[in-house]
Amino acid sequence: MIEFSGNTDTSQPKVVIIGGGFGGVELAKRLADAPVQVILLDKHNYHTFQPLLYQIATSGLDSASIISPFRKIFENQKNFWFRLTEVLSIDTEHKHVKTKIGSLNYDYLVIATGAETNYFGDQQMAQNAIAIKSIDDALTLRNTILCNLENALQAKDEEQLNTLMDFVIVGGGPTGVELAGALSELRKHVFPKDYRELNIKQMDINLVQSGNQLLKGMSEGASRKALEYLQRYGVKVWLNSRVKSYDGRTAILASGEEIKTHTLIWSAGVTGAPIPGLRPESMLPGNRIKVDEYNRVAGYENVFAIGDVAAMTSEAYPYGHPQVAQPAIQQGNLLAKNLRRLIHNESLMPFNYHDKGSMATIGRNHAVADLKVFKKNYSTQGFFAWLIWMFIHLISIISFRNRLIVLLNWIVSYFSYDKGVRLILGKKKDHAGFSND
Amino acid sequence: MIEFSGNTDTSQPKVVIIGGGFGGVELAKRLADAPVQVILLDKHNYHTFQPLLYQIATSGLDSASIISPFRKIFENQKNFWFRLTEVLSIDTEHKHVKTKIGSLNYDYLVIATGAETNYFGDQQMAQNAIAIKSIDDALTLRNTILCNLENALQAKDEEQLNTLMDFVIVGGGPTGVELAGALSELRKHVFPKDYRELNIKQMDINLVQSGNQLLKGMSEGASRKALEYLQRYGVKVWLNSRVKSYDGRTAILASGEEIKTHTLIWSAGVTGAPIPGLRPESMLPGNRIKVDEYNRVAGYENVFAIGDVAAMTSEAYPYGHPQVAQPAIQQGNLLAKNLRRLIHNESLMPFNYHDKGSMATIGRNHAVADLKVFKKNYSTQGFFAWLIWMFIHLISIISFRNRLIVLLNWIVSYFSYDKGVRLILGKKKDHAGFSND
Repeated sequence: MIEFSGNTDTSQPKVVIIGGGFGGVELAKRLADAPVQVILLDKHNYHTFQPLLYQIATSGLDSASIISPFRKIFENQKNFWFRLTEVLSIDTEHKHVKTKIGSLNYDYLVIATGAETNYFGDQQMAQNAIAIKSIDDALTLRNTILCNLENALQAKDEEQLNTLMDFVIVGGGPTGVELAGALSELRKHVFPKDYRELNIKQMDINLVQSGNQLLKGMSEGASRKALEYLQRYGVKVWLNSRVKSYDGRTAILASGEEIKTHTLIWSAGVTGAPIPGLRPESMLPGNRIKVDEYNRVAGYENVFAIGDVAAMTSEAYPYGHPQVAQPAIQQGNLLAKNLRRLIHNESLMPFNYHDKGSMATIGRNHAVADLKVFKKNYSTQGFFAWLIWMFIHLISIISFRNRLIVLLNWIVSYFSYDKGVRLILGKKKDHAGFSND
Repeated sequence: MIEFSGNTDTSQPKVVIIGGGFGGVELAKRLADAPVQVILLDKHNYHTFQPLLYQIATSGLDSASIISPFRKIFENQKNFWFRLTEVLSIDTEHKHVKTKIGSLNYDYLVIATGAETNYFGDQQMAQNAIAIKSIDDALTLRNTILCNLENALQAKDEEQLNTLMDFVIVGGGPTGVELAGALSELRKHVFPKDYRELNIKQMDINLVQSGNQLLKGMSEGASRKALEYLQRYGVKVWLNSRVKSYDGRTAILASGEEIKTHTLIWSAGVTGAPIPGLRPESMLPGNRIKVDEYNRVAGYENVFAIGDVAAMTSEAYPYGHPQVAQPAIQQGNLLAKNLRRLIHNESLMPFNYHDKGSMATIGRNHAVADLKVFKKNYSTQGFFAWLIWMFIHLISIISFRNRLIVLLNWIVSYFSYDKGVRLILGKKKDHAGFSND
C-alpha cells in the first residue's frame, strides 16, 4: 500500500489523477486550495508540452526545454502528492488503484492517460515506423534523421543512399505538416552546410495524407495555404493517398507506388490509452472512455475521465472533442470546480467546449491560423499567423525557465538560420545493414 | 575504404585526428587555412565541454547546453571532414586507420582520444560505481539521483532509506569537490520542496579523499577553503581515507567503516584511452602515450598524440602534464603550427606549457581559484573567485547559443535557488530490489 505523509490533513478525500498531461496538470493545479488530497500518478517525472515535440525531432529545441518536472510545477501546492509509477489496473468496486510500486485507495478517480499512436492494427507498421507522441519518440526520430545522413556518407549504392536520405511522413494533420515544414528547413538551411559531401537536393520529403486536404478540420483557406507553403518548400504532398505497407525499407502506397525510406514517421492517428478495470460498456470505439457532460465515466459515481482518453459525445461532437490540448485543459478546469461541488453536495455544471481555434506553423514566417475570438471566426495565413502561433505556444509553456529558453532558441535560430540541437544522443531506429552499426 | 569528396584539393596531405575533445577541436580549427585535409573521427557527433558535466548530473544544466555538434563547429571550414565512427586500430606501417565503418589512410595521424575513468583494476567497483567522464555518465548519474529519491518514498525500512538517500563521492579533485557542492545545494534548496514527505536532513553526502587535502595540486589556501566551504554545506569529508570495496549497496572504507549507499560516484582517477596498434615501447604507465616535446609519439615520424592521452615528461612534469583542458588546447594549437612547418620542411617548435592556474566552484558565491597572470600567482577564494570561475567557463563554451543558454540557466537558478532540469530521462543505475523496478 502506498502511503502519503505531509503537513495537510490526510483524512481529506483523496483525488487520484492518473496522468500528468494538459488535463491532469490543470485539474491538479485548480484543486490547490480545495479540501482534498491531490495525488498525481505518472510514469514520467515530468509534464510534456506535446505541441512542440516536432521541434525536438528536428533539432530546433532540446528536450529539457519543453518538459517540466511535476515536483517543480507543484512545489508550492501543499495538498499535492506525486508518485512516479505506472498504473496497472483499477478496481472500482474497492476504490482501489494497482500500480507497479503498490496499491492505493481513492475517493475520486480521474483518468487522464491521454492518447497513444494508433497503427490501426498494422503490426509491421508499428514495428518499423517512428511515432511522435512522446519525448522518447521525438529523440528517437532526431537521432535517426541525423544518423541517416551520417550513414549516407558511406552508402554503398544509389538505393541505399535514397533509403537513408528520403523521408515519408504519414498523416497531414498539424504534426505531419509541422514536421514536413521543419524537415524542409533543415534541408534548405542546415544540411547543405553540414553534409557538403552529399547532394542534399536528393533528399525527398514525402507527406502522405489520406483525404483530399491537409489540416482536416481547419478552414479551407488554411488547408490550401498549408499545401501551397509546403509545395513551395519542396515537400512532395500525396493527397488522397495512403501507405499500404512498410517493411522498414520500402513504403508501398495504395496506388502501388513505392518509396524507399529508412524513416517513416507515423502521425496518422491516435487511440485512447485507458486503464484495465473499467467495464466494457464504458468504452467507445477508438479506445476512448464514454463520459457524461460532467466527465463522469458512464455508470460510475466517482470515476472521471478527461482529455484525449475521454469521449463526451454530443450533437456538435458526435465522436467526442478533438484530441488536442484545449478540451483537456477546459475539462480539467471544470472538473476541479465540480469536485468541490460534489464534496459540498451541490449540483454539477455541464461542460461546454470553447473552441479557440487551431493553428499550424509550416516554417519561418509561415503559419496558418483559424481563431475564434468572442465567437467570431478569424482566419489568417502567413507572417501574422506565424507571430500568433509563436506567442500562443510561448505563453502556454509551463515554466518560466523553459519559456525563456525556448524564446532564446527561437531568436538565435531565426537570425542564424540554424537549428543547433543536432545531437545524436540515445536511442535511434535500428540501422541494420547500414554502415554505422 | 572511407572516401571523402568536397570542394578542396583532395590530393593535399591528410591529417587524421582521432577524438574531438579540447585538443582535437583546437588542432582542427587551427588548421583551417593550412594546405591539408583535416579529417576528424569521433564516436559522438558532438564535442563535450567536460568541466560542466557535474552540472548536468545535478540538474543545473541540460546536456544540450554543453555539447556542440562537430559539423556545426566546423561548418565554415572548407578543409574539414568528419566521420562518426569508432577507431578500432591503427597500422603505422601502412599509414592506415581501421574504423567501424571502413579504413582510411593518413599522412599525419593525431591521437587525441583523451582519458577514461580508471578503476585501478577493481572490477566490482567498475560494475557498481557511476563515473562522470561523459554526457552519458552524467545523465545516468542525474537519473539515478532522482530515482533514488522517488524510490525512497517507498522505502521498506531504515536501511533501504539510507541506501537510497546517502551518496558517496570518491576522489577529492575538482570534479569530486564540485559534485559534492552541487549535491549539497540540491539538498538545501531543492529536495526539501520536492520531497516534503522525506526528511531530507537524513541525506548524507560523503566525499572520500585518499590524501590529506582536497584539490591536490592547488594552493594550500584553496584546499583549506574548499574543505571549509564543503563542511559548512554539511558534506562529510573523509580525508586520508579510501573506499576498499563497493558491492552496489555498501561502501567499505579502508578503516573498516561502512556506508550504505546505492550511489557511489567514482572520480578518483583517469587512465589514457589509447588505440591498439602502437608498439609497446610508446606506452607509459597510466596508459598514456609517450611523446617528445613536439607531441610526436616516440619512435614515429608522423604519428602524434595530444591532450590527456599523451604524456610529455620533463623535469617540471615528470609524469606528463595535468590531464585537463589547458595542456590539450595548447598542444593542439602548437601542433597545428608544427604540422605546417613539417610540410614546409621547417624545424619544429618545442612545447612549453603555460599554466594559467586552476579553479573549482563549491556552490553559489563560493569558489577557489589559483591564477597565474604574467607568471605571477594570485590565489583567491569566495565570491570573487566564483565570478571568475563563471566568466572563464562561460567564455570557454564553444557555441554562442550554448553560452547564452548556460548564462540564462545560471541567472534563473541563482535568483530562484532552483535547479530546473531534474528530469528522469533515459538510463539509470539498476535499482534491483527497490520499489520502482
